[in-house]
Amino acid sequence: MSRIPMEGKVLSENDRIAAELREKFREHDIFCVNLISSPGSGKTTLLEKTLAGFGPDERVAVLTGDIQTDNDARRLARYGYPVRQITTGGACHLDARMIQRSLEDWDLNSIDVLFIENVGNLVCPTSYDLGEHHKIVLLSVTEGEDKPLKYPATFFKAQVVILTKIDLLPYVQFNLELARENARKVHPEVEIVEVSCTTGQGLDQWRAWLERANVNATLVA
Amino acid sequence: MSRIPMEGKVLSENDRIAAELREKFREHDIFCVNLISSPGSGKTTLLEKTLAGFGPDERVAVLTGDIQTDNDARRLARYGYPVRQITTGGACHLDARMIQRSLEDWDLNSIDVLFIENVGNLVCPTSYDLGEHHKIVLLSVTEGEDKPLKYPATFFKAQVVILTKIDLLPYVQFNLELARENARKVHPEVEIVEVSCTTGQGLDQWRAWLERANVNATLVA
Repeated sequence: MSRIPMEGKVLSENDRIAAELREKFREHDIFCVNLISSPGSGKTTLLEKTLAGFGPDERVAVLTGDIQTDNDARRLARYGYPVRQITTGGACHLDARMIQRSLEDWDLNSIDVLFIENVGNLVCPTSYDLGEHHKIVLLSVTEGEDKPLKYPATFFKAQVVILTKIDLLPYVQFNLELARENARKVHPEVEIVEVSCTTGQGLDQWRAWLERANVNATLVA
Repeated sequence: MSRIPMEGKVLSENDRIAAELREKFREHDIFCVNLISSPGSGKTTLLEKTLAGFGPDERVAVLTGDIQTDNDARRLARYGYPVRQITTGGACHLDARMIQRSLEDWDLNSIDVLFIENVGNLVCPTSYDLGEHHKIVLLSVTEGEDKPLKYPATFFKAQVVILTKIDLLPYVQFNLELARENARKVHPEVEIVEVSCTTGQGLDQWRAWLERANVNATLVA
């Protein structure tokens, strides 16, 4: 995010709306996660696999953000759950007001789990609270194991790091142990899940985390 | 970049300093390119291969930007040319003032080619003119061929798109033809170069472009 004098004001206005969203999620018992990563780390593909794992009666919904195009919403809509694209125009991140507006005409009582797919950007999205229960950061093994050290704020605020595309490990120079170590240097308690959406490896672990976190969120609320 | 009221003011101040930089580059006959991409698309690796291709007497220098760490400067310094890390703290992009400050104590008469490696971010860096001759955008084949459509401003302003990691094409779903088509939809005249820093494929084409663009810049100046 740009270091611009108005930044503090914008963020505190965002925090105010995020608090309203958080209250709304609590009231309607909605478990909400916010997926953050570089462009092309596999957020949409992970969501496709995640939606495919829910039963037809489960009450799941997705808000997906991009600067331009509704490609992701079209990809995700095929799974039969409510999906809405947020096109930010030029903004490099989703903010709480965009989420608030997108939810305005949805029946929140019909949603149990809400996935927010942020704009592909490993920097700015993490500064904007969306009222979510957890931030999840994805890091593809093609991006290099140094990313937690280079983008510490994003990895520090995430509850889970999902290392994606692990089927490509034989073809890239990526030290899995060092990646884990770097993530834990920035955020010692972070959960780390390794997945391949191509082979399916690790998806059960991701689903187990989601289920556990959802139950815990309900217990707290 | 955030759509913040102060943005216009910040950008016009940036433009003023960028104009000074441009004048300085002209005066000292420095050819300058600004490399922009997502985190982990291979900017540093491409620069390593590029530096390795220069002769020991060639006058090349690098400024490399990151939010945290001087990993990239350390990697690049091994090639024997002047390299300086710019650590932005929280800022998601390099701006003209950072470049100006970094160049203050360098003898500009001893530099012919200046590479600027921006912060890994496909959105915000493109809004900040650094006085460079050309913006170059890198897109790794692991990121998906839809990125030019999702990040049109960045691809529109780039003179060259470098499709990186093409050695991974057999292992990922990436339609090279569609990627080229998408890049040209956003920017019809854009040059497209395909490289693999692992196999070396395409590096000669990239070097040839650099040489040609450098000669042309000198002719214009």
